[in-house]
Amino acid sequence: MPDTTEPQERTASTPIGHRGPVALINSFVLAEEAEARFRALWEATSAFSRSQPGFRSLRLHRALSPEARYRYVNVVEWESADAYRAAHEQDELLRLVTRRDWAEYPSTPALDEVVEHLVGD
Amino acid sequence: MPDTTEPQERTASTPIGHRGPVALINSFVLAEEAEARFRALWEATSAFSRSQPGFRSLRLHRALSPEARYRYVNVVEWESADAYRAAHEQDELLRLVTRRDWAEYPSTPALDEVVEHLVGD
Repeated sequence: MPDTTEPQERTASTPIGHRGPVALINSFVLAEEAEARFRALWEATSAFSRSQPGFRSLRLHRALSPEARYRYVNVVEWESADAYRAAHEQDELLRLVTRRDWAEYPSTPALDEVVEHLVGD
Repeated sequence: MPDTTEPQERTASTPIGHRGPVALINSFVLAEEAEARFRALWEATSAFSRSQPGFRSLRLHRALSPEARYRYVNVVEWESADAYRAAHEQDELLRLVTRRDWAEYPSTPALDEVVEHLVGD
């Protein structure tokens, strides 16, 4: 699907029965002048996520390439798809991710698994 | 810019003078039946990347969400923008990333920095 601004599409669907860790990857389109507003909104949402059982880590990436389609890419690792789902069914999280302010930032939420992980010497 | 299939846009532009580690994030659109071909092409390119000085790690993510826009997201960490640039100026890498086979997989290469990194308990 294309980048979305629909509140009900602000989280990723979660496969039933998947085992092992998962990563939510969400890439955001935003205008340069919107960065401070975006960061404040992101902070409030991520503070809730990281308080939930099964949260492992998050990395928020900011593009250095001026031509980048996505100014921010958020990668949040969860212990399991079940842990991700449980967190994202909380009323407080649903309230946070469906705030109308998010409509300013089209995004592409998806739940992924890591299929290759290599570390250099 | 939109997802690209142009050979000369298959790598990210690199900011001069940036200090600290960087991450290449590249998200790929592909049809389900193209997965095996994509993985073979990706293996050949990533094998070269990870042989280069300054390579730190890579994670290839595969979407579990059926509605995901990007079936694969590749995140490659480099020690610095200079190390990324040096690797991507090698003739062999240019040859690999401009192979016409890549035109089947629109992607969004960008060089990012990590602005938040949090690890759970």
